[in-house]
Amino acid sequence: MSHELDRLRAQMDEVNLKLLELLSHRAHLAQSIGQVKKKQGIHRFDPERERDMLERITKSNPGPFDNDTIRHLFKQIFKASLDLQQKNHKKALLV
Amino acid sequence: MSHELDRLRAQMDEVNLKLLELLSHRAHLAQSIGQVKKKQGIHRFDPERERDMLERITKSNPGPFDNDTIRHLFKQIFKASLDLQQKNHKKALLV
Repeated sequence: MSHELDRLRAQMDEVNLKLLELLSHRAHLAQSIGQVKKKQGIHRFDPERERDMLERITKSNPGPFDNDTIRHLFKQIFKASLDLQQKNHKKALLV
Repeated sequence: MSHELDRLRAQMDEVNLKLLELLSHRAHLAQSIGQVKKKQGIHRFDPERERDMLERITKSNPGPFDNDTIRHLFKQIFKASLDLQQKNHKKALLV
């Protein structure tokens, strides 16, 4: 049984690293979107686009997390991405 | 340029769905781990294991998110998984 726990934990470690990879890839995409928006003079924070993304995501939610939990987790990811874009913008201003 | 934004957004929508898939897979793993622990009479919350996971994750962090942000995001994921295990446990008690 302890072997079973080790096996599951090894799988979880793998999933954690895949999540990290995807989150990092998403953060790069968010940076690119921020740059395009800056050139176009569009505001970085777009609540309508966030709502749209959350709707697409929750529509595809297979469980076991309920939609409220999925919404909460993605909102944290959106916020982290926005903070990153703002940090980059501040850095650009300081150059 | 607007075409560029559409292209990046389509990529982000894809990444969102892949993240949802991985988060859901991770949640199933967490449920299985919870069941094994229950059988073994081990407490579900294991701060040492969480610290260990966070260390592995931040060691592999390629950026652009800094380690504090990655730690914050994964702590939210850990918490959601633990809540899910506790919900399942309560359900089992009610049967």
